[in-house]
Amino acid sequence: MANSKYAYVRNFELPDPLLPGCFLVCRLDGHAFHRFSDEHGFTKPNDERALELMEHAAKDLMSEYNDIVLAFGESDEFSFLLRKSTHLYNRRHAKILTTVTSYFTSCYVFHWPEYFPGKPLRYPPSFDGRIVQYPDEQAIRDYFAWRQADTHINNLYNTVFWALIQQGGKTTAEAHATLTGTVSSQKNEMLFQRFKINYNETSARFRKGSVVVREVATQDATDANPMPPQPPAVQAETSRPSPKARKGDKTKMAIQVLHCDVIGDEFWKARPHLLAG
Amino acid sequence: MANSKYAYVRNFELPDPLLPGCFLVCRLDGHAFHRFSDEHGFTKPNDERALELMEHAAKDLMSEYNDIVLAFGESDEFSFLLRKSTHLYNRRHAKILTTVTSYFTSCYVFHWPEYFPGKPLRYPPSFDGRIVQYPDEQAIRDYFAWRQADTHINNLYNTVFWALIQQGGKTTAEAHATLTGTVSSQKNEMLFQRFKINYNETSARFRKGSVVVREVATQDATDANPMPPQPPAVQAETSRPSPKARKGDKTKMAIQVLHCDVIGDEFWKARPHLLAG
Amino acid sequence: MANSKYAYVRNFELPDPLLPGCFLVCRLDGHAFHRFSDEHGFTKPNDERALELMEHAAKDLMSEYNDIVLAFGESDEFSFLLRKSTHLYNRRHAKILTTVTSYFTSCYVFHWPEYFPGKPLRYPPSFDGRIVQYPDEQAIRDYFAWRQADTHINNLYNTVFWALIQQGGKTTAEAHATLTGTVSSQKNEMLFQRFKINYNETSARFRKGSVVVREVATQDATDANPMPPQPPAVQAETSRPSPKARKGDKTKMAIQVLHCDVIGDEFWKARPHLLAG
Amino acid sequence: MANSKYAYVRNFELPDPLLPGCFLVCRLDGHAFHRFSDEHGFTKPNDERALELMEHAAKDLMSEYNDIVLAFGESDEFSFLLRKSTHLYNRRHAKILTTVTSYFTSCYVFHWPEYFPGKPLRYPPSFDGRIVQYPDEQAIRDYFAWRQADTHINNLYNTVFWALIQQGGKTTAEAHATLTGTVSSQKNEMLFQRFKINYNETSARFRKGSVVVREVATQDATDANPMPPQPPAVQAETSRPSPKARKGDKTKMAIQVLHCDVIGDEFWKARPHLLAG
Repeated sequence: MANSKYAYVRNFELPDPLLPGCFLVCRLDGHAFHRFSDEHGFTKPNDERALELMEHAAKDLMSEYNDIVLAFGESDEFSFLLRKSTHLYNRRHAKILTTVTSYFTSCYVFHWPEYFPGKPLRYPPSFDGRIVQYPDEQAIRDYFAWRQADTHINNLYNTVFWALIQQGGKTTAEAHATLTGTVSSQKNEMLFQRFKINYNETSARFRKGSVVVREVATQDATDANPMPPQPPAVQAETSRPSPKARKGDKTKMAIQVLHCDVIGDEFWKARPHLLAG
Repeated sequence: MANSKYAYVRNFELPDPLLPGCFLVCRLDGHAFHRFSDEHGFTKPNDERALELMEHAAKDLMSEYNDIVLAFGESDEFSFLLRKSTHLYNRRHAKILTTVTSYFTSCYVFHWPEYFPGKPLRYPPSFDGRIVQYPDEQAIRDYFAWRQADTHINNLYNTVFWALIQQGGKTTAEAHATLTGTVSSQKNEMLFQRFKINYNETSARFRKGSVVVREVATQDATDANPMPPQPPAVQAETSRPSPKARKGDKTKMAIQVLHCDVIGDEFWKARPHLLAG
Repeated sequence: MANSKYAYVRNFELPDPLLPGCFLVCRLDGHAFHRFSDEHGFTKPNDERALELMEHAAKDLMSEYNDIVLAFGESDEFSFLLRKSTHLYNRRHAKILTTVTSYFTSCYVFHWPEYFPGKPLRYPPSFDGRIVQYPDEQAIRDYFAWRQADTHINNLYNTVFWALIQQGGKTTAEAHATLTGTVSSQKNEMLFQRFKINYNETSARFRKGSVVVREVATQDATDANPMPPQPPAVQAETSRPSPKARKGDKTKMAIQVLHCDVIGDEFWKARPHLLAG
Repeated sequence: MANSKYAYVRNFELPDPLLPGCFLVCRLDGHAFHRFSDEHGFTKPNDERALELMEHAAKDLMSEYNDIVLAFGESDEFSFLLRKSTHLYNRRHAKILTTVTSYFTSCYVFHWPEYFPGKPLRYPPSFDGRIVQYPDEQAIRDYFAWRQADTHINNLYNTVFWALIQQGGKTTAEAHATLTGTVSSQKNEMLFQRFKINYNETSARFRKGSVVVREVATQDATDANPMPPQPPAVQAETSRPSPKARKGDKTKMAIQVLHCDVIGDEFWKARPHLLAG
């Protein structure tokens, strides 16, 4: 072959296997999304369309990769849990990481017009990603608890912050100053007293983030859906089961988006397969 | 903070710095592009629009990242050279790798309609990526020689293969059988004798691949190439200089796509900065 | 400082932390010990003095490093288990690996004259080492089962092999040929029929390898083992408690060498701290 | 095999190749040698026997490993340069690192009685080690310059410090205080004025450290150094050529210890093979 004398350069490609027996968490973060959300007029403090687009991309990714058993998203970030025994791409680090990051990005751009009709992308958005290895179930539980606690903290702050600005007529500097040093109960009180907002009645999508799992599909997707009557915390939307999932399973499984608590035991006890070997 | 008890999970995020003083090559490959090109009706053996779209994404990436000093593409792959002294993201492996992969993917999807008007994407395409560290200039020279030799081998084969099918009425099996065991000179001869195709007169984009560099911008794209007199094979297109590039440099630099030889010395001698420290 | 202009070379020293929450196993292997045992006249198939010297070095290492909770040795290799929560040297890979390897080597050479009086070392012996990360208890159980099963297989083979030579007058080639294709029961039978050797009555040190643990020290070494009534295979020797261990613990702990089974549950159930967090 | 069901634990042993085309520097450091030198009554500020023992271990290591082309030592540390094209143990990181560390340690303990007759080791000394990859010649030059500059700084300080104590009757606290804030010229002056010591006439072993190289062996060790006319600082000792080295080379090469400058060009120009490919 004409290129055989150069082929030695492949020797510089070193193996990069991830450790067997570990759970893998791949977390994606929007790159410079502060500017991106400004340029594209995202609603503050939360843009429902933008969050739904993130969820759509996450569901597409899980349809493509059965070894992703759980995802959690908030704002411009999404975390994906690969089951600990996954053999995806022989557990090659860069291969898994780039494929997940690239496909998620592609889905985000691909589906943009469905969520922002009439508002074309002004420039290509991107995400960075990392894979973290976790050796045991407790660390996984704590990882998702960490992200959901973060969601709560950020969303409560942002909800009051933007109420102060949008309804209270404050500048951003004033809003910041008002909130400095306040604890959760004070923020809740401020919301209720000044703006008649009961934080716990705001959208669970904003308060709890987006939990994506494969669940047994129900006949009536509307029942599963967030709007009433619902179990207070849990709100689910049904997506079409992926061809792969359908083929492999007897019961009809579908990728669902929930806005439920993942800090307590209930979520995990009801889904023992998430942490199984 | 409500999430502080979980924050220990960040300790599992290990540092992943790349070695200082090495050139970095990031190579992206289309994921399942055999199927993708079929589904989207790519012209065989080469689809000019698809190649131009790849080039566009590569140019966008180089506009965004000044430390990428050279790129080379063929078919559904593109390689990017980061200068050896780059401090991009403190040389963090996953950060550089995912940002490059994600932004390239995003640009590909974003610009698709410009190159395939009236033929919307049927599903989101994706790319995988890897970073390879090279300690010296010779290995970098050989890396790009390796890719361009590969371009030549593949393109010559594909050109005859598809001529046998499209003009010669062969089946794919027959075309394969006809080519088995032939050397380059025989393929050239076959092209000329049977199909009146002079291989050396086919598009340099197909034969040489796409070389992307920052050059001094000129009015006349043909002059942009610093190696006069131009060999006919070299075809350059001028893109608009990026705001960043404009800001940092005194002379107007622009990202150019060339279809020139990168195996010999000439290309590198004319651009000593590519391999500089 | 006169050396500050060169200090940048430290930037090439990259961090190498091991993953938190994993058990660490450090396995050392004698380097070219086939020749070493020949040159120093080791008894075949097992040299008790050489094994005791290995055990001595292992005990010294465990006296020095409290985070090593268990060791297992056979022939010229020894494996050390570090508890999963160890913070030894901030879990830096090379630091832990080289310190363990170096100190074990040093102890081996240092104590040589005690086990081989009148037979000075002819040249310096050495060991190579590696650290393997294991995410869960089952893998650790299986790791030590793997080594002990290996001990059994090798020792049974070697016992018959050398009986055939030493008592049976065979050449090594003949002995190999005699054993080719035989299973364990046939080897046991051969030992008993031809050489009146009941394999199960041979030294447990040879059959089971050497298990090193910290136990409550007692006057009577036989009592030291917490699994009454003692299976005859278990042989324990008490070493002096290290100053460090004495300082840190209320009860007097001592590092003990056992020759007991580590494949079944009993050993591990009696010592739950070995696999604790 | 009885152990085949456990053999999966080997899957946790991940590959760890070092990057091709890089120089490798392996640096060993004495572990807790402050205490070790006290316990063994090392002469202050430098113990010639201890340094010669270090040199002996380094020479033994280089006799064993032809791919180590250069070593530099000072105090209780030694750095070894492996040529950049080395294929030693397929460039496996842990294998190279532990073998070098273990063998050096073993040689140190093995040869101890030759340098400290009548003063047996009180406990086993040990070393830690690390391997650093360097992509180019300049970084290697600067690495060894860094170590030699460090030797100079430390030795000048220690020389005055111990003169103040041993000849000047100061306490260590007073000696420290006297030296705080002084620059090199002041220390030189202090040595000369108070103690009649001309620093440049003290032993080159102390001032320059120990440089170990393979050179053409000659009858007269003074001639061994290829840089005529010899500056008085350079002191060379010839060791017996290793059997391996003799076998591979036509001219008789021997491992030599020099105490010469490695910061300037002369040393490297005279030995171009050290940095060759």
